[in-house]
Amino acid sequence: MSFKFAPTPASLPPRNASLVLRQPANLPVYFQPLNPLQFILRAAEIYPEKLALVHPDAKYPVFYSFSVWCQRIQNLAYALIQAGIKPGDRVAVIAPNSPLIADAHHGVLAAQAVLCLINTRLKPSEVAYILDHSGSSIILVDHEYRHLLPPDLKTPVIVSNDSGREDDPYEQFLSNGRAFSQERGWKGLEYQADESASALLCYTSGTTGRPKGVVTTLRGSYLAAVANAYESRIHVDSTYLWILPMFHAGGWTFPWALTFAFATQITLRTVDFTLIWKHFNNSGVTHYSSAPTVQIGIVNDPAAKPLSRPISAIIAGAAPTASLISSLEAKGIQPIHVYGLTETYGPFTRNYVQPSWAALSLQERSKLMARQGHGFAMAQDARVVYLPKDSNDTELVDVPRDGKTVGEIVTRGNIVMKEYFRDPEATTKAFRGGSFNTGDLAVMHPDGAIAIVDRSKDIIISGGENASSLAIEQELSSHPDVLEASVVARNHIKWGERPHAFIILKVDSRTKWKGRHDAFGEELKAYSKTRLPGFACPEWVQVVEQLPKTSTGKILKTDLRKIVAKL
Amino acid sequence: MSFKFAPTPASLPPRNASLVLRQPANLPVYFQPLNPLQFILRAAEIYPEKLALVHPDAKYPVFYSFSVWCQRIQNLAYALIQAGIKPGDRVAVIAPNSPLIADAHHGVLAAQAVLCLINTRLKPSEVAYILDHSGSSIILVDHEYRHLLPPDLKTPVIVSNDSGREDDPYEQFLSNGRAFSQERGWKGLEYQADESASALLCYTSGTTGRPKGVVTTLRGSYLAAVANAYESRIHVDSTYLWILPMFHAGGWTFPWALTFAFATQITLRTVDFTLIWKHFNNSGVTHYSSAPTVQIGIVNDPAAKPLSRPISAIIAGAAPTASLISSLEAKGIQPIHVYGLTETYGPFTRNYVQPSWAALSLQERSKLMARQGHGFAMAQDARVVYLPKDSNDTELVDVPRDGKTVGEIVTRGNIVMKEYFRDPEATTKAFRGGSFNTGDLAVMHPDGAIAIVDRSKDIIISGGENASSLAIEQELSSHPDVLEASVVARNHIKWGERPHAFIILKVDSRTKWKGRHDAFGEELKAYSKTRLPGFACPEWVQVVEQLPKTSTGKILKTDLRKIVAKL
Repeated sequence: MSFKFAPTPASLPPRNASLVLRQPANLPVYFQPLNPLQFILRAAEIYPEKLALVHPDAKYPVFYSFSVWCQRIQNLAYALIQAGIKPGDRVAVIAPNSPLIADAHHGVLAAQAVLCLINTRLKPSEVAYILDHSGSSIILVDHEYRHLLPPDLKTPVIVSNDSGREDDPYEQFLSNGRAFSQERGWKGLEYQADESASALLCYTSGTTGRPKGVVTTLRGSYLAAVANAYESRIHVDSTYLWILPMFHAGGWTFPWALTFAFATQITLRTVDFTLIWKHFNNSGVTHYSSAPTVQIGIVNDPAAKPLSRPISAIIAGAAPTASLISSLEAKGIQPIHVYGLTETYGPFTRNYVQPSWAALSLQERSKLMARQGHGFAMAQDARVVYLPKDSNDTELVDVPRDGKTVGEIVTRGNIVMKEYFRDPEATTKAFRGGSFNTGDLAVMHPDGAIAIVDRSKDIIISGGENASSLAIEQELSSHPDVLEASVVARNHIKWGERPHAFIILKVDSRTKWKGRHDAFGEELKAYSKTRLPGFACPEWVQVVEQLPKTSTGKILKTDLRKIVAKL
Repeated sequence: MSFKFAPTPASLPPRNASLVLRQPANLPVYFQPLNPLQFILRAAEIYPEKLALVHPDAKYPVFYSFSVWCQRIQNLAYALIQAGIKPGDRVAVIAPNSPLIADAHHGVLAAQAVLCLINTRLKPSEVAYILDHSGSSIILVDHEYRHLLPPDLKTPVIVSNDSGREDDPYEQFLSNGRAFSQERGWKGLEYQADESASALLCYTSGTTGRPKGVVTTLRGSYLAAVANAYESRIHVDSTYLWILPMFHAGGWTFPWALTFAFATQITLRTVDFTLIWKHFNNSGVTHYSSAPTVQIGIVNDPAAKPLSRPISAIIAGAAPTASLISSLEAKGIQPIHVYGLTETYGPFTRNYVQPSWAALSLQERSKLMARQGHGFAMAQDARVVYLPKDSNDTELVDVPRDGKTVGEIVTRGNIVMKEYFRDPEATTKAFRGGSFNTGDLAVMHPDGAIAIVDRSKDIIISGGENASSLAIEQELSSHPDVLEASVVARNHIKWGERPHAFIILKVDSRTKWKGRHDAFGEELKAYSKTRLPGFACPEWVQVVEQLPKTSTGKILKTDLRKIVAKL
């Protein structure tokens, strides 16, 4: 590359800068609160000149060493403090994979604030809801996503042009932070004394129509990050390619796993298969994470060819199929199948491959590899328990290990969220019986491995995004002609799944659309595009006379799924 | 091997046994106390049939899978409880590397008791002191070390014949535990609710003449174990050979690092270089740990030859020399140089090899590799601070990073002991200034790496054992003819270091030994053998007229070291 990159003057650390925060008073000598912020400081101390963060394909590519990146993180912390951010305040970030969001994972913690990550694929109305509900005190936004912000916003906004150049407003913000610091440096920032203090606030549409704010702790983030580095065997000689959006469950704690490991990370603004293969072949990539739908795109890209070195692919979001596993392996990509939710910091189980599987056929082996497996390093057991008989039932009883009896996956421990933000009712419900109830239905096999059979809350995984069928149904139901809507996932060759909507028309509207159900479908799709993110818009609309229901009036989605499975 | 091993009936777990302890009440859903006992349970759940613990070279070789080993650990916990052991009680173990001491690292914790590890190389009088001071309620002893126990002992003793056979008293103890359990299993044992509860009690002669009991926590043990697995890259496909005695600082938390990693461990009762090379070549060994003196023995053994697969050698206890590094590398052994003390769970710093070193000559590279380096994964910073001006001085001020100014290494955080057992005075002294004061003198280089220049407390590392010169001096001084004794380390071709004693005779005794200093030396050596472990007995005795001293009367050991350096 002919381009020569020079970090802004404010990004260059002073000589012999101390890389230790001010220690809180009165801690026992043998106790240090766990905090993933520590990892970047340690990396800057031990490998200051090593390439830490690379953003190679933007208009202005940037390359930061651990030393420089660490200084930028300190600058961000001081800039936030100067902007009035106090411990516990929420700092919202809306950005694709880029230095801004990578910085924020560390800098916001250094200001003892809480990082509120907002999905760039949401609608402005959803972003507005999250900004309001989170009570975010400041917003850091990538220039491409400014339009997501409400027009009447009172909250201060810092825009990043993603250039790393001095005239970039985000860079000016960092420079102001450096000036404000007056070189007090890390010693001017206090280490958070409470390891159960909040780290991230990530809104999920995972379980109801209303986004819920998942709050994670510093302790959980630290332990999950180390677990991810260990399970994926990420070390100082590793290079991680950011395909998974960092705003997805905080990038499954990989922003910290990578600094813990002293690994190099490469950020990609968009999922571009040609770029991905360029980096696979030329940038020493050793690891990446993504959902199966993206993995399918990777292995089927024209640029795909067998690699000269192996790469590990961490797969979550859905189980990899036999066809995907064989395609990955043929390219020299080793799949690591993990399972988790935003509420569990990303992965909390892993499919632990057994030596005996090597002798099996691909088909048999893939079936075993598709199971969600066992509790992850540092996570507690993943249990499968009988569903509650009624809403007062809090008793958790494990289903037998028969591979047949369906129950709900639950877990507890350090890799479980602290709470839903400002929603004690939802928290209590999610923590029924002293465990986190995932809402995912599964069986437990005789070897203790769990295997998902269905998602009890009807999530549709569309292009790697979680679309809540409940939320979609609510929006569709707001159309003046719609009496009732029920949405299920239908397989889609490109996106993995897309929503298929079953609609009962209002009696008054039936004549209006008689013989023109296709036209109604087009109208409803157009309507939904104004109210839902693209990935959540129904791809198919089917008008029906009635919906299959239980005796208590609950729609039998299993029956609807059988219908779309035949389409 | 033609020998067919069958575990005792009590070692075989019942079908479908639950591998979860009873959960303590009232813990937050998102909090699980860290406890390294969890690792073996997880290993037994995920890899039940994998080889976990192998004891191949005893008269009766044994081979335990994770599933069987885990049941034996449960049996041990119940056997201890049946014997009256209550939470917090001390359980003493005197054993070489063998299943007994490996079991105890997990089974004692499962009974919520504290494991007191006793060095098999101590004298009976020292063992008696430790048993008394620790207040151990029961003693598990290997048959070869029964003679170390006081004759008038009131404490119950369980002897292991290290056979794994039903008629072995230790196996009978385990079988009784199984019967006592009445198959209540793991659910009948409660998970320790306090992660700061004590895990190990290891007596060190490291810093004064009197052994001090280092108490570690469950939290620290968990974090240090994961850090060791991560730093050494130990995984499910690793096999660890126990050369380091497990009673040395709890084997540096490797007993738990290996179960965390699902690795196989091979125990060797003694350091036998022929056996070591047999296992290097035939048993798939990937990792081992030991002090440089033992490493020297390994690479210089007649059986030593280049390996077909690389092995990682974790080295601590002293810095590896250029000659050792080159010998190891020539055999395909990759050295990992770490530094620590019993008070820091073993390693808390590591020499992080920099890519730029590859271009250096062996001599230059070895000099850099000999440095103790930077804080380990999960440890806090290793600092070098000015020595206290007087005993009231508690201020810790970092020395400059000039590679010249000598100070003391201090650290704090999760990888630091909780306290010295029943010795608040020594604890307070060791925790001067809110950090653990190692007593090791070092400089800090401009890159932040620490390098030891001397041991302020004058430890002599003899055959991998820490001999306290103060303790030796005290014993020598008890000889009727000795006025004053000062002991320093002198290089020894076999043992690394051996004590060299400078003696001033009592005035009355000077005529008696006039012209017969050699004879006096022999007598003093014989005398010391009755009072000190072999590794602490002086190898050389030199009668002098006077000792070099400071104006305040303190012996200038630096001067004495200069004298022996020339010998």
